[in-house]
Formats: sequence, C-alpha cells, structure tokens
Amino acid sequence: MAKKLKGNLLYGQSGGPTSVINASAYGVITEAMKHEDIIEDVYVMKHGIKGALTEDFFHMGSQDADHIELLKHTPGSAFGSVRYKMKAFREDETDYIRLLYIFKKYNIRYFLFNGGNDSMDTCYKIADYMKHVDYDVRVIGVPKTIDNDLPFTDHTPGFGSAAKYVANTIQEVSYDMLAYPKGKVTIVEIMGRHAGWLTASASLASLSGFGPDLIYLPEVPFSIEKFKQDVRRVYGEKQQCLIAVSEGLTNEDGILIGSSSGLKDAFGHFQLGGVSSKLSNILNSELRIKSRTIELGTTQRAGSHIQSLTDVEEAIGVGKKAVELALKGKHGIMITIERVSSDPYEIKYSEHQLSEIANIERTIPPTMINEDGNGVTDEYIEYALPLIKGENPPQYKDGLQQFAKMRIDN
Amino acid sequence: MAKKLKGNLLYGQSGGPTSVINASAYGVITEAMKHEDIIEDVYVMKHGIKGALTEDFFHMGSQDADHIELLKHTPGSAFGSVRYKMKAFREDETDYIRLLYIFKKYNIRYFLFNGGNDSMDTCYKIADYMKHVDYDVRVIGVPKTIDNDLPFTDHTPGFGSAAKYVANTIQEVSYDMLAYPKGKVTIVEIMGRHAGWLTASASLASLSGFGPDLIYLPEVPFSIEKFKQDVRRVYGEKQQCLIAVSEGLTNEDGILIGSSSGLKDAFGHFQLGGVSSKLSNILNSELRIKSRTIELGTTQRAGSHIQSLTDVEEAIGVGKKAVELALKGKHGIMITIERVSSDPYEIKYSEHQLSEIANIERTIPPTMINEDGNGVTDEYIEYALPLIKGENPPQYKDGLQQFAKMRIDN
Repeated sequence: MAKKLKGNLLYGQSGGPTSVINASAYGVITEAMKHEDIIEDVYVMKHGIKGALTEDFFHMGSQDADHIELLKHTPGSAFGSVRYKMKAFREDETDYIRLLYIFKKYNIRYFLFNGGNDSMDTCYKIADYMKHVDYDVRVIGVPKTIDNDLPFTDHTPGFGSAAKYVANTIQEVSYDMLAYPKGKVTIVEIMGRHAGWLTASASLASLSGFGPDLIYLPEVPFSIEKFKQDVRRVYGEKQQCLIAVSEGLTNEDGILIGSSSGLKDAFGHFQLGGVSSKLSNILNSELRIKSRTIELGTTQRAGSHIQSLTDVEEAIGVGKKAVELALKGKHGIMITIERVSSDPYEIKYSEHQLSEIANIERTIPPTMINEDGNGVTDEYIEYALPLIKGENPPQYKDGLQQFAKMRIDN
Repeated sequence: MAKKLKGNLLYGQSGGPTSVINASAYGVITEAMKHEDIIEDVYVMKHGIKGALTEDFFHMGSQDADHIELLKHTPGSAFGSVRYKMKAFREDETDYIRLLYIFKKYNIRYFLFNGGNDSMDTCYKIADYMKHVDYDVRVIGVPKTIDNDLPFTDHTPGFGSAAKYVANTIQEVSYDMLAYPKGKVTIVEIMGRHAGWLTASASLASLSGFGPDLIYLPEVPFSIEKFKQDVRRVYGEKQQCLIAVSEGLTNEDGILIGSSSGLKDAFGHFQLGGVSSKLSNILNSELRIKSRTIELGTTQRAGSHIQSLTDVEEAIGVGKKAVELALKGKHGIMITIERVSSDPYEIKYSEHQLSEIANIERTIPPTMINEDGNGVTDEYIEYALPLIKGENPPQYKDGLQQFAKMRIDN
C-alpha cells in the first residue's frame, strides 16, 4: 500500500484536440474531486505545459458545475492545448527547474498529462526529471489521439468518435452519389499523416451497403498509375467511384503525394494543396473523368455532435483510471486499453511504462489491409466497429450545441 | 368542390438532393395512400423525369413499410434524381407526347414533382402541356433546395437541415481553433452558387459564442484587396481567423473567384480548384499567414445525422399539402411556406402559380447583409434561427445510420 501523498493535482491537454479529450478531463477532474482528503485542489494548465511554465491555471473548485458536465459534449481543448517540445533535461534544464519550482509552489503531487505520442514524450521527460531530483510526484499519461497510433494500447480515446464521423459521412456521401445514374468520382481526404486507422474507418460505411469503392492508406506506398487503373476499373463498372484517401499518402520514395502537386500560383510559388485536389486534377486532366473533392479538415476531430458513446465512456474511463493509479502510487506510466473480447465488446484498463511509449507510432498491421492495397480486410472491420457504437447526443439549445466555458481567475 | 378524379399518382425527385427531400416523399406517399378511394396506386419515377420517359417506376404498394418510415432519415434521393432540361413543347414535342402516352397508360391523374428552380420549370412545362392537350391531371410542384433560393416562399425545405449542419460544423471548428494561443486562418467553403443563404447560416454559430469572423456571400462582389485587409485586421487582433466563403463568390465583373485561380498543373491545364484553396494560397503566399481549408462538399446537403426537426416536419408538410391540394383540384401550382411569426415560430402552407416561379432565383436581401459586406445583420439571424431548431435523431444500428432501400420490380 502506497503512502497517502497529500497535495494538489495538475492536469493538462496537449497536441491536436479530439472530440472527447474533454471527456477525459471530466474523468480526471470528477474522480480527483472525490478524494479531497488526499487531493486538496485540482488545477488545469492553460495551453498545456506552457501554462504550467507561466502559472496560468484553471482552478477546478471555482468552475460552474454545469460546465464541468458539458465537458463530455465539448470538442477541441476546453483548457487550451500546445505543441511544445521539451529538450532532454540533461541538455537544457531551464524548463525543468521552472516546473519544479511551480510544482513546489503549488504543492503538485499528481501530474496528469493528456495527449498523443509527442505529449507522452514530454510526460516521460517530466516523470524522469522529477525522479532524478527526488521530488515526490506521480506523473501519469492519459492517452488521446484521433490517429489511433499510440503503441501498447488496443486503441486510443478520440479515435472511435472520429471514425464514427468519417463512417457516417461516407454513408451520406455514398447515398447522395446514387442520385444520378452517371455520377462523378468523389475523393474524400481524411486525417492521419503516418497511420491510416482513421482513413480505414471509411470502410465501416460498407456494412450499411453505402461504403467507399477504394481506400488508400499511408501504410501502402501510393502509385499514381495503380490509382488510375483502379479508378478506371470502378468507374467503368459503376459509372461512379467514391474514394477515401489519407492526407499522408506517400510514393515509394516516401514523398508526400499532396506536397508534390507541381501546381504553381501566379507568383511561381508551389501550391501546398492536399492530396485530394492533386488526385482530382489527375482524373480531370488525364482520365477526363469529372471528380470533386471533400476535405473534412478539423471537422473530423471536432465532430462533437456525433460522438461514439463507447469512445466517450472510455475517454472518461482512462481519466478516472489515471487518478486511481496515481493514488495507488503509480508513476511514469500511461493508461492503456486492453481488449478482452470484440463480440461482445469488452475492455479493461491497464498501464504501460512511458519510457517505452514515447515517439513510437503504431500503424495498421498488414493483415488488416487487403492484398490489392486499396481497402481493408474483415479483421479491420471487426476491430473498429465496436468503437463507434452508441450515441452521446449533444445538449442542443435552439439547434446549436452547448460547449463548456472554463473560467480562469488569475 | 372539385369532382373526384380517380386514378394514380406519380411522384418524382429532381435536381440536387437535400437531407430531407425523402421526407417530402414520405409526406406525399403516406398522404396519398390514405385516399385509396380516389388514388388507387402511387408510383415514383426512377431518376425523375427520365424514369417517367422510360417507364422505370417504383410501386409504393410493394415497398417495405419500415423503409417507407426510414425515408424521414435518409439523405440523397432515395428514388434517384435527374438534371434534365425539357424544351418548350412548342419547340419539341417528343418528350411531351411520350409523357402523355405514359400518363394515359398508367392512368396518372396526379403528378407531383419535387425539386428546385429548374425542376419547377419542368413542372410548369408539363402542367402547361397537359392543359394544352386537355388531359385531366393535377400537376403540383413540391419545393426543395438547400440553396433556399426559390421565390414566393419564406424558405424551402432542405435549407434548415443544411444550415444546421453548417452552423454546428462552424461551432466545432471555431472551438477547435481556440486550442492554440496562436492559430491559423481556417477557410470553410460552403455551397450556393448564386444565393448565399447557406453560407450565411455559418453566422448562427455566433449565438453560442463560437462563430466565424468573416462571411463572404455571392450577393456581394468580392474584392481580394478588401479580403486581405479584413483578414489582416482580424488576425492582428485575435491571432486567428475563421472565414466562411460561398463557393459562388464572383468579382465585380461577375467572374468566379474559384475558377480564376491561375493555377496550372504539369500539363499546363488550368486547375479547377475551389475558391477556398484560391484564397488560402493568397494568404499563404502574399500575407505569409498560415491557412487551411475545409471543403464540405456534398456533406452539407447529405447530413442526415443532424437534420433539423423543423425542416423534416415542413418537408413532410409540403408533401402532404401537395396531395391535399391536388385532391381539391389544384393544378399548376407550387406549395409555399408563409411565415406567420418568427417568435414564437409559426408558419402556414400556401401556394403560388408555377408559371411565375420557374427559373427565378431569390437571393439574400441587402437588409440582411452587414454594411461592410463581410457578415450578416440580426434580421438574417432572426429569419434563419427557427429553421434549425429541433432534432430528428437517426435510427443508428451499431453506430451507423440506416437508410431506406427502395425496390423496383420492373
């Protein structure tokens, strides 16, 4: 039994938002507040680690209870996020010394950091430093990412809701395309630089009969010739074609398809445009097939109006679990999700050493990608389908969503 | 009292789909089936008027009742749509002679055509011809369009749900942008070639505190210099900027901003790319401000998962009303919506002569656009807000929507 370490808890959000990262905040905050005999105050950093360095904290005791509840329905980062890479403390100790000063000043004994790969690196460095200087604090990582690319966890909170958004959007676009006997090619560009988990979720729409014809993942080197063959074949058969592409497609040399568009503007600058417009231009000019693009952009990670209840519950779950394990004396770990069974779906929460997680990206295994490299296998469907189940309807007011507003006093 | 004209009803969908055009089909079909003493059979054309010419009909008596119910939740055109412009019968009578033959063969005495401006033109031409040849049929137009540009009606079914989709998406993207202290410029491209009603609906998000900074409508000639000034000002104040633009923005000479991108591909072909990527490139290269685009494309009109209940009910309402008025002997009219009051919201259904409707596009009046030409006035908000109210939650199964599947027998 770990000793009861009295003090305060500091929580922060980092990296790209998901539609359920604030549900994890809800899990952390509400669980921590249940233990006021040990955790006296709960603080949240404004804009992640930057707020810790500048002492910009939200004090949870002085927030509106309704708005704490609304965190479960709020996209983005309700407390602000950051992309800030800390150097190793052996290289530059400045930030760490400042952080230690702040930890002591606020008697921070629990430090919970909510993020993806880069954030887990930061979390590990802080855990490591605090151990090095022998400051007694429990540092725990809370996972989040729509990319689903954190290792040692079956999946990551944030992915399920983004996947539900993508799958339902593909259903709708696919059904819409059936309106005309001779249609177009529609290319939907989906987030995920190196891992195709989210792009692959377009495949789930096929279970309803209205799915994509072709899916291109960053795990498979992209060939423009093969792409043209695929489209020509599908278009020949169906007179239309729905394609899901990852923004991070690269050719065999690892060069991004999107960045190599070769398009120049009036000033001679290369256009930065995405992969979908590049591919659309190829179809229009080389195959003379009309095509249009849909670039979902940040709507995929911010789609709070179509959250997966499974995802929301697990996002809350990893937050609660982090507090529980911190109270049990754990340090230097990230909470993970282990799948017990897919059907019926059952998971349990577990943990993994932060030292092994930092900066490893988990991509889709070859067994989940079809032989032709333009779709997924049933193994992927079985894996992903349980994660989009269940609804968490928004609290609409006059047809608009209500989002949490957090107050900062200092 | 009109004589009881016994016979069959033929319904069809035309033009671009909306997320509630099938709710109008539901209204027509269920109302017509209540009057089996007069309307013996209900047929629906496959792909609109094309299906009428080729005798491709769905017979409503042999459809699955569950799937008729699902029409209220199904985007796209469940029966197929068409873009087919009929010549005036005095110019070329071919199609009309064929249509008259089909009407006689199937004893069609009620012809209900569901569409926007172009479709009302077709509807009028058919009504006019049938009167000309003295064939006794009641021809009535059922309005639909996400563009909200039909004249003589307060608004059009399809607009409210698309506006709700846009407003909620803007809320989410806006909240997501707050994550970082220094953000980007985000440009969201919204449908509407000549009328900015839908683009303007982005403004509704402001009621929640998370709205766009700038809105550019096709009703206002677009100046790139003014645009750069606007963005520079907002970005200077807030370090970020959220912009809603209509796909149909034109400059003072009426030339589409999107089509004049000046970008060429490797083959020297001009790129067709949209207005948002054009403007994004200008910000990146001329102002050196990072920007990104979101191109919602057909998701706006197909977003069945976030329908407005007000819109669904009115879509059903115009369908029912069309049947009622047809039974009362009306011919050559389109059903319209009259607003009785905005707060509390109350409407009544009415009618207008098709002859006056065809091909007129109703744009946003100047009183709804702000002086600076980059936003809307309260008059627009008061007008549009009631139309997005109320929810019609999808019938999810395993996190995916269920859509109607119609069977064709012949």
